[in-house]
Amino acid sequence: MQIIVVGTVAFDSIETPFGSVDKILGGSAVYITLSARFFCPKVGLVAVVGGDFPEENIELLRSRDIDVTGLQVIEDEDTFFWAGKYHYDLNERETLATHLNVLTSFEPVVPEAYTNGSIVCLGNLDPTVQQSVLKQAASPRLAIMDTMNFWIDQTPDALRETLALVDSLIINDSEARQLSGEANLVRAAAVIRGMGPRKLVIKKGEHGALLFTDEGVFSAPAYPLEDIHDPTGAGDSFMGGLVGYLAARGDLSVESFKSAVVYGSAVASYCVERFGPQRLLEITHADIERRVDDFRTIAEIPAPASVFEA
Amino acid sequence: MQIIVVGTVAFDSIETPFGSVDKILGGSAVYITLSARFFCPKVGLVAVVGGDFPEENIELLRSRDIDVTGLQVIEDEDTFFWAGKYHYDLNERETLATHLNVLTSFEPVVPEAYTNGSIVCLGNLDPTVQQSVLKQAASPRLAIMDTMNFWIDQTPDALRETLALVDSLIINDSEARQLSGEANLVRAAAVIRGMGPRKLVIKKGEHGALLFTDEGVFSAPAYPLEDIHDPTGAGDSFMGGLVGYLAARGDLSVESFKSAVVYGSAVASYCVERFGPQRLLEITHADIERRVDDFRTIAEIPAPASVFEA
Repeated sequence: MQIIVVGTVAFDSIETPFGSVDKILGGSAVYITLSARFFCPKVGLVAVVGGDFPEENIELLRSRDIDVTGLQVIEDEDTFFWAGKYHYDLNERETLATHLNVLTSFEPVVPEAYTNGSIVCLGNLDPTVQQSVLKQAASPRLAIMDTMNFWIDQTPDALRETLALVDSLIINDSEARQLSGEANLVRAAAVIRGMGPRKLVIKKGEHGALLFTDEGVFSAPAYPLEDIHDPTGAGDSFMGGLVGYLAARGDLSVESFKSAVVYGSAVASYCVERFGPQRLLEITHADIERRVDDFRTIAEIPAPASVFEA
Repeated sequence: MQIIVVGTVAFDSIETPFGSVDKILGGSAVYITLSARFFCPKVGLVAVVGGDFPEENIELLRSRDIDVTGLQVIEDEDTFFWAGKYHYDLNERETLATHLNVLTSFEPVVPEAYTNGSIVCLGNLDPTVQQSVLKQAASPRLAIMDTMNFWIDQTPDALRETLALVDSLIINDSEARQLSGEANLVRAAAVIRGMGPRKLVIKKGEHGALLFTDEGVFSAPAYPLEDIHDPTGAGDSFMGGLVGYLAARGDLSVESFKSAVVYGSAVASYCVERFGPQRLLEITHADIERRVDDFRTIAEIPAPASVFEA
């Protein structure tokens, strides 16, 4: 299956307790495509950058077999820029600057060559832009989206419209509570699934991820990492690994989604080991498989050994 | 195996968004013993109450096969009283009142009949009191303890002394961070295991529990409950289910501990469905087994189906 990915391509400046980096390659679509391409040779990017975006970055994506036909370059504008800071426990992040630049007037165009894409992956962006891509994508077998607190607050109607059109949503736990108005995650999931996305993934950072489907709940553990250098892109690389796995397997069943959640978790667990997308450029299939095996060990409940007398 | 349980026996007044109860039976030792007795017919209580403690409460424990020989009654004092309030998300609780009463001068005495107890379970209490019980218990095969932020803050030296004497500690995630001074739970676990307890369980409430041993990490999911009426006693019933399972199985291996974490989680998931220990008086072995099966389904990662070409 082919994947169409829309999202941001950005410059990120990041500060964590372990160091800082300035204006490195970032953005949701970068993390998603760099993760999905491990699994799927047909990943098509839809995004926009400014004239300041170095050709070598585009070359880097191309060198990883990402189709950049859908990447618009607006010569007289600047690339989207985000600056953020993580505090000592890495769970909370503070946005220091957001310069939308080219994003302000982004009108995504899905290239002809992508339109038989079977999976449409809508990275975190204005829900109207997400919807535009979805509508250009003919009839995908799977439409999956991300969103964030900003869109839940600022564009609730557009967000609800887009949610009604997708099969699946990936969201973090605080966003799930905010979107649903429910503190209990099981109730939150029921409310959100009622809005459209029948397969819902709730990401819980260091506590793993939950998958809610018509068949019930699946709980994936987090990988027990001692050294997290930079959480930026963890959620996007999770999404990229997940859609990549589904595309490669060509099976959108609940069973396949459960495995996809584990593969997504494995890719995300590598991503956070270095600043920016660095680690995604280093790891191999064998690394991903090894970590998936570790997840299996970590989560394995021993065979039944009841102690109750019959 | 026989279990010796020391902890509080209390009157609790509890307010949650779903209602309130006044001066009901509570305390760590009550939840632990009422949970352990599902598994093990030899649960011996060591605790203290005042002259105001109704005989019918003692009778209730006795009717559940709990040995109350070690329950002291101090006629001219009052039973320990705790009042607390949970807010809408049930994750944070506010203590409204703590009247130590009989606890102030509690000197635990382990009855002769208990002293061949193989498992000593030290519920949340002053670490000096925990230590006294441990020393009276001859040479148990397993010493396992709980503690809380109050003792970490107020009696750090006594706590460290007691920790050095036990095999296992059960603690929640915020307490683990506080005790270790590490924000990352994997690092926190390493620091705490260095203090003595080689088998460490970190409880994460709605996110499940982690077991750290010499063999690595085991992650147990939380049961996806929609209706949590009262979280009081969840941690203690988890501990009771865990030690009960271990005692019944008579096997203290890592494999057995993993199963014990799941059985403890199952009992705790019932406990929170009603106020106080009510639900622990209603459920059966079949209920517990059914929930353990559910845990297995929730956590099961599908069989390997790699998508990478060899």
